[in-house]
Amino acid sequence: MNKEWIAEQFRLLQDHICNRLEQVDGKGKFIEDKWNREEGGGGRTRIIRNGGVIEKGGVAFSEVFGPVSDVMKKQLGLDGSDFFASGVSIVLHPENPHVPIIHMNVRYFEMDNGTFWFGGGIDLTPHYIVPEQAKLFHQGLKEICDQYHSDFYSKFKEWADDYFFIPHRNETRGVGGVFFDHQTAAESISKDQLFQFCIDLGNAFPELYAQQVEFGINRTFSDQEIKWRNLRRGRYVEFNLVHDRGTKFGLFSGGRTESILMSLPADASWEYNFEPIDGSIEKLTNSYLKKGIDWLA
Amino acid sequence: MNKEWIAEQFRLLQDHICNRLEQVDGKGKFIEDKWNREEGGGGRTRIIRNGGVIEKGGVAFSEVFGPVSDVMKKQLGLDGSDFFASGVSIVLHPENPHVPIIHMNVRYFEMDNGTFWFGGGIDLTPHYIVPEQAKLFHQGLKEICDQYHSDFYSKFKEWADDYFFIPHRNETRGVGGVFFDHQTAAESISKDQLFQFCIDLGNAFPELYAQQVEFGINRTFSDQEIKWRNLRRGRYVEFNLVHDRGTKFGLFSGGRTESILMSLPADASWEYNFEPIDGSIEKLTNSYLKKGIDWLA
Repeated sequence: MNKEWIAEQFRLLQDHICNRLEQVDGKGKFIEDKWNREEGGGGRTRIIRNGGVIEKGGVAFSEVFGPVSDVMKKQLGLDGSDFFASGVSIVLHPENPHVPIIHMNVRYFEMDNGTFWFGGGIDLTPHYIVPEQAKLFHQGLKEICDQYHSDFYSKFKEWADDYFFIPHRNETRGVGGVFFDHQTAAESISKDQLFQFCIDLGNAFPELYAQQVEFGINRTFSDQEIKWRNLRRGRYVEFNLVHDRGTKFGLFSGGRTESILMSLPADASWEYNFEPIDGSIEKLTNSYLKKGIDWLA
Repeated sequence: MNKEWIAEQFRLLQDHICNRLEQVDGKGKFIEDKWNREEGGGGRTRIIRNGGVIEKGGVAFSEVFGPVSDVMKKQLGLDGSDFFASGVSIVLHPENPHVPIIHMNVRYFEMDNGTFWFGGGIDLTPHYIVPEQAKLFHQGLKEICDQYHSDFYSKFKEWADDYFFIPHRNETRGVGGVFFDHQTAAESISKDQLFQFCIDLGNAFPELYAQQVEFGINRTFSDQEIKWRNLRRGRYVEFNLVHDRGTKFGLFSGGRTESILMSLPADASWEYNFEPIDGSIEKLTNSYLKKGIDWLA
């Protein structure tokens, strides 16, 4: 299982996910931009907009390699001289406020000294949190995790709670999911299994999203719910631009800006000191924006 | 001229600016939130929304002091044990796309070892850049600068070009203005003069803004111009959340989030790979988003 083969599987994963998402969306079609990285490698950024479900979304594949720059040394703590990285990244912003925002990423990293690791995650950001919906999502993730390691779900769920957190708002981005980084082969799990875990997560992604879409897509929505959706999207923008490591690393290391910022919504809003009224479903959603909730309970 | 007196003058400056801005706006009224900082000090955040000109804006005064935290040591490079900081910060987002976004900040910093410095700046971000309008703005700034030091305008104008720049977009935020930091007393300028320079900038601010409002406020605007305005606001959000030192420092040091993020617009938009069409006024605006333009020429 060499790095080129892994990248090829990620490329195929992108194809599969885009095909399935077009089916789920029912109307939107992805457009593709291919790009090259001067120092080595490149990618295929695929964008969907104004679909039946997805207002703005992207599914990006990249395979980049070359010398380790000073920024990478500092930000990633890499000590080798050449690196190879490949992955698939997704963010989907639906139009309907009752359908959640969803994010997925799987990635493989290898240094010229032979060290390697996998990373990734899937997390869900409902504009309106419904525990039953969050439970379904977490059940799906747990099923995949449990096939690989009995610790994976609890460990990666906690990691997601910690990672997808907005410290300056003291709230989670949404209902979390799983997040993992720097996973390398160990006694308990082989490189093949880690790779297959990433692929399984990737394949599950459109199905998990389809479930979420089904829950909310037939609900009508008001201007007030659009307003709330856009305020929640504002928080998503804050997380991605202020805290998300991948976004910051990409922007500061001279990555392709349009591919990195495909994660941002079509529209987002801010209102000074906005507080939903007591007893509202917006207030209820806010009450769920905390770490450590056992959605499977 | 002790620190408490300086803070008091900044408080009066906030009062003056708010009064004048209400006159310029003609409809909106500021609402005020007072807040206290646990470690010492506090502030008065004043917000205006849905005015005759200003859709969303804030004029904030703060006076904070106390022990230098680890974050401050690291981010500000402070080596004393106690600090005092006071200042006025402003961002105004007008509704009409033909009226520019404007920002101002003046601040005073003092350490318990007796070192002190002033910092500040004013910069203009037109959604549509009109060189004649930018010239008027820069003329106003130069007039103030020239009263204090023959180098100030050229030096602080260049500093603004460098500071109000979005590296990941390779474009300036707007037409710049002046920016300065760590200005302390020297042979060529006294502490009193530096302070008065800040106050003069502050007093000039609403007049400079009034000029800009006058230029654009009577122009009607289309949905397409609103769309462009929101895309430009998206860049403003990117600058503030990814690059602006004050914002980042505030968010990471546990500042009052709502006061810091009062700089964000009511609505902002992102569109993947948006490119204005050749010959459009949007395209013309983009051509001006670069450093080193002599707006006075």
